[in-house]
Amino acid sequence: MIIIMKPKVRQSDVDNIVSILETHDLVPHISEGTFRTIIGVVGDKTKLDTDHLSLQPGVERLVPILSSYKLAGRSFKPEGSVFSIGDVEFGGSSPVQIAGPCAVESYDQIFTVAKVISDCGAKVLRGGAYKPRTSPYSFQGLGVAGLQMMREAADAFGLLVISEITSEYDLDEAAKYIDIVQVGARNAQNFRLLAAIGKIKLPVMLKRGMAMSIEEWLGSAEYILSEGEYRVMLCERGISTFETAYRSTLDIGAIPVLKEKTHLPVFVDPSHAAGRAALVPPLARAAIAAGADGLLVEVHPNPPEAKSDAAQQLRPEAYVELMRQINGMLQYIEKVKNHD
Amino acid sequence: MIIIMKPKVRQSDVDNIVSILETHDLVPHISEGTFRTIIGVVGDKTKLDTDHLSLQPGVERLVPILSSYKLAGRSFKPEGSVFSIGDVEFGGSSPVQIAGPCAVESYDQIFTVAKVISDCGAKVLRGGAYKPRTSPYSFQGLGVAGLQMMREAADAFGLLVISEITSEYDLDEAAKYIDIVQVGARNAQNFRLLAAIGKIKLPVMLKRGMAMSIEEWLGSAEYILSEGEYRVMLCERGISTFETAYRSTLDIGAIPVLKEKTHLPVFVDPSHAAGRAALVPPLARAAIAAGADGLLVEVHPNPPEAKSDAAQQLRPEAYVELMRQINGMLQYIEKVKNHD
Amino acid sequence: MIIIMKPKVRQSDVDNIVSILETHDLVPHISEGTFRTIIGVVGDKTKLDTDHLSLQPGVERLVPILSSYKLAGRSFKPEGSVFSIGDVEFGGSSPVQIAGPCAVESYDQIFTVAKVISDCGAKVLRGGAYKPRTSPYSFQGLGVAGLQMMREAADAFGLLVISEITSEYDLDEAAKYIDIVQVGARNAQNFRLLAAIGKIKLPVMLKRGMAMSIEEWLGSAEYILSEGEYRVMLCERGISTFETAYRSTLDIGAIPVLKEKTHLPVFVDPSHAAGRAALVPPLARAAIAAGADGLLVEVHPNPPEAKSDAAQQLRPEAYVELMRQINGMLQYIEKVKNHD
Amino acid sequence: MIIIMKPKVRQSDVDNIVSILETHDLVPHISEGTFRTIIGVVGDKTKLDTDHLSLQPGVERLVPILSSYKLAGRSFKPEGSVFSIGDVEFGGSSPVQIAGPCAVESYDQIFTVAKVISDCGAKVLRGGAYKPRTSPYSFQGLGVAGLQMMREAADAFGLLVISEITSEYDLDEAAKYIDIVQVGARNAQNFRLLAAIGKIKLPVMLKRGMAMSIEEWLGSAEYILSEGEYRVMLCERGISTFETAYRSTLDIGAIPVLKEKTHLPVFVDPSHAAGRAALVPPLARAAIAAGADGLLVEVHPNPPEAKSDAAQQLRPEAYVELMRQINGMLQYIEKVKNHD
Repeated sequence: MIIIMKPKVRQSDVDNIVSILETHDLVPHISEGTFRTIIGVVGDKTKLDTDHLSLQPGVERLVPILSSYKLAGRSFKPEGSVFSIGDVEFGGSSPVQIAGPCAVESYDQIFTVAKVISDCGAKVLRGGAYKPRTSPYSFQGLGVAGLQMMREAADAFGLLVISEITSEYDLDEAAKYIDIVQVGARNAQNFRLLAAIGKIKLPVMLKRGMAMSIEEWLGSAEYILSEGEYRVMLCERGISTFETAYRSTLDIGAIPVLKEKTHLPVFVDPSHAAGRAALVPPLARAAIAAGADGLLVEVHPNPPEAKSDAAQQLRPEAYVELMRQINGMLQYIEKVKNHD
Repeated sequence: MIIIMKPKVRQSDVDNIVSILETHDLVPHISEGTFRTIIGVVGDKTKLDTDHLSLQPGVERLVPILSSYKLAGRSFKPEGSVFSIGDVEFGGSSPVQIAGPCAVESYDQIFTVAKVISDCGAKVLRGGAYKPRTSPYSFQGLGVAGLQMMREAADAFGLLVISEITSEYDLDEAAKYIDIVQVGARNAQNFRLLAAIGKIKLPVMLKRGMAMSIEEWLGSAEYILSEGEYRVMLCERGISTFETAYRSTLDIGAIPVLKEKTHLPVFVDPSHAAGRAALVPPLARAAIAAGADGLLVEVHPNPPEAKSDAAQQLRPEAYVELMRQINGMLQYIEKVKNHD
Repeated sequence: MIIIMKPKVRQSDVDNIVSILETHDLVPHISEGTFRTIIGVVGDKTKLDTDHLSLQPGVERLVPILSSYKLAGRSFKPEGSVFSIGDVEFGGSSPVQIAGPCAVESYDQIFTVAKVISDCGAKVLRGGAYKPRTSPYSFQGLGVAGLQMMREAADAFGLLVISEITSEYDLDEAAKYIDIVQVGARNAQNFRLLAAIGKIKLPVMLKRGMAMSIEEWLGSAEYILSEGEYRVMLCERGISTFETAYRSTLDIGAIPVLKEKTHLPVFVDPSHAAGRAALVPPLARAAIAAGADGLLVEVHPNPPEAKSDAAQQLRPEAYVELMRQINGMLQYIEKVKNHD
Repeated sequence: MIIIMKPKVRQSDVDNIVSILETHDLVPHISEGTFRTIIGVVGDKTKLDTDHLSLQPGVERLVPILSSYKLAGRSFKPEGSVFSIGDVEFGGSSPVQIAGPCAVESYDQIFTVAKVISDCGAKVLRGGAYKPRTSPYSFQGLGVAGLQMMREAADAFGLLVISEITSEYDLDEAAKYIDIVQVGARNAQNFRLLAAIGKIKLPVMLKRGMAMSIEEWLGSAEYILSEGEYRVMLCERGISTFETAYRSTLDIGAIPVLKEKTHLPVFVDPSHAAGRAALVPPLARAAIAAGADGLLVEVHPNPPEAKSDAAQQLRPEAYVELMRQINGMLQYIEKVKNHD
């Protein structure tokens, strides 16, 4: 950490800072510039209260050098996290395809989708059983019954199951049916839920909140990691900006930035960012081209009849074509190298 | 609702839409313009699936005329909501002052603050017992012990208690000590929590999420209202923008817009928007000048020693001065009139 | 256009609107819904003042059906614009590669870059001669001398020249040396400059302003088109958002949206969005994967010695590798189809 | 400036940095922390190329300590800029009221408004003669004829004239009629125009661009100041965010932040931020309450007949009432103190 003092600071203010640092066993390095005095701080700053420090007389601002997350940082695992769930490798050399309907609606629907995506090489079946909807009057999902349907469909085609959990109350029951817990954008800073999920011994897909910076996102991931669950994946799904031509602005630049800052695998959900099916294939291709470790794509056997987010779900034939393109592109895209 | 058809639409596509509307007992009004055919829809659209409709051939887009919230809309209560909690009137002719530390830390701290704010005319004591922090390694609050301290301090000075609840698990216990439940920005779209809070028969202060549009915010309020709890207040606390000179951008324009769209009382929290104490008084005055029904201001007897958000808490003497200014200004500010 | 009246509107207010429309030879179509009366407007609305209309008693809001740009709209040229400059085809089946240094600095520098990019298949040499810098104390470019150097280097390798013009004063002189005029993000709503550029008979590359919606961008393009210059290309270069991990947020979703809304070719500048070289290749690949008609990439023979934006310029060998990847990917990316 | 080196940096990389600094007569101060080596730089950094430095091996990032603007910074004039134009004091103890129509349309119109605002105590008449419009088909202003009308109306009531200039070409002619040059949001980074304006010996009102950070805004101001024109005023008029309930998000927090960072007077234009008249009075009151040095408010004798931005212009009687409220409030608002 670096402490930047105000212009023309008094010596007594500098002495005060030095004294505070020394009582915390920290070593101050003082640089007196032409306009400012700057104090570098060396040592274990865990017990130091930075707010306290920033309010001392003469202090202009603090510049943190290390980030507030530790386990999520790239330096914790410079080679990148690679782990298997069942026999599917996440974070490895091949992107993992996750697909399925926005919401599970019926046995027929979920089996139809499971077959299509399995034929295309997808390894994980997605589908909402608990739906966070902006209006309380919209379809809220089938709950446990939906999870059971997904489990059966996934088992029939050798797929894993991922589904969003929106409350601690549902965790234990849901854990019987799913392989990966998804945290949605609207709960991405529901820290109580994150901590609870970190304890149930299931891998986690953490979506980005619509207004969360990459640093805050990694702070949320740290809540899960610090409970001992290291199989955490991140999923970019668009942020809120002034542009209204689609639902959210897919932050394609977040992919290479995350590859520098964290060792966690990075997924992209082009369907929620787009909000309509026509935009999904170009965004999906872009995500892979930018280095994503996998995609979550919404696929529905008959989108016009879907009970939620009908407009953004791909028809099976569109998904087949998208996967064909992506598999072709992949051989030309250099896997992002380890950062040191 | 209005359905805008694509240019040069086929008659069969228009007939299809008419047929769908008629099977839902809706009356179509067709306007054939020079470039577009437009279909107005009259009748009870509750059972109509708009996603289904938007995917029909020939449809370009739908334009909703009514908002998705009902109970939160201004037309539900055109004169505005005014209600009392204890003997404090919310939404009435005088703004309500809510103040207190970011987090409850000790009996001494909370009693000192309670006295100061009570002397200044504040009616509600705020203080965090469950703190949502972006890092899992930061101070997380005293929990129930903190609520107990607040209750005692509030009772000693005739104040109400407001505190943030971050999990359904804490609701029943917390309800013993608090008068108003606060929902924080990070849980503002945690719909499960909102629905649970709507059932416990306590008034609610709903903060705005950092990326939530005003329409989405009112959708969240509707989750609480639709459970039967009508004593809901909204609290603007800043949104995420590109500007980094303060913590969040206080959306001052949201105040008059909310006064048009909803009957719910509108509060402002200048402390979290600002992120540092020097900016709090100008933002607080601006909020009152723009027509806010009250303020939440962070006050701490000794900010540099605070365990969280030290930088943004006002010293008691600064709060006293701020209240003096606001009370003077108030007589010149026209109360926003009812909208019809 | 559709006029949505307020709830419980008076008949006299509806009559007033009808009367205004009829004096403009427009035909009103009235739908009386359960809650609202809605008036569809059919006819030539060119002479109608919509602000005037929106202020009439009883009017809640207007919903435009057609966009405010005409020549830039996709329906003006549904098959998409394809045009040649020299022997280079823009908007056609192959993306056009534009590359070069941020600023022209010397003969050596520009000849070195021109050779490298030409060897990689780039067809257009870019380089700044008039640099818009956020600080008046930064390097401002070589002016006409820089344009002369670019012209010579381009001619030596059979390339076209593109360069940014920041003032009407420079247009005539600059037109002697360049093949394509670039309008930078900071001048994207400098309407006087746009109109002047539209008159000089040179094709134009119009960058997007950092806070411009896609609709506003097309409005700016219309300023050029309406002067008779139809060879206009758009260049996405990142928008301002709350994220600070890179310079601007590349709006990858703008590419497919523009392909729907306009017939103009769409380019992407990953270098300015990224702000540092390590992020350029993933963003460049993503742009091509999303359907861009070409790229502007900054390449410098020795980035650490560059006089401006050193951090974001690729070394020649990195550009060579990027072009190799992109050319491989391209065969798998379906060209975005015409929209009808 | 501080240079933060990468973790486990090699001694040779540190030596390289030290060597570069020393050849520029700068003194390095090295702090070796547990995880990072940090180098403080003392001396005159004017000739140092920071991009060059940031690309050296082992460098993670640079932290600037001083801002890139000098003349615009608060420390250049810690007591704040106060200057007179005619007999009107700007930046002094009383806010200056500027008002008038969006666009000058006729003698009648501008005389009517001039009288109303003069009666209310306004000192400056505003009105657009060159209108930057997002569509080339909208009313573009009366040009010099409009300026002449403003001059006559202003002289009749003892007012100053402010008007927006959008091109260098118009400067000399316009200077004959106006007292203050306004730079609009869309030209706020048109550096050529800024530099030209800085030379004509007229005071300047510089609006904020919709995506400009406060730091970038002060960079634009520096372009004018560095040409020798010190009578520069800033005008906040709203920024682009995800919220669509009004035209732009008025950044009320910018006011106190600017009071810390710069000595230049700070104005607010609530009319353009709001986009409709009903929101103007609350935003105007908020601006004054937050410490603005004055307001620009759009007033029109008959808004429904206005040729541009009809929806956002106040009727004269609404302006009269707004001024009454503001004058009352003012006596309770502590003038923001000098910052030291």
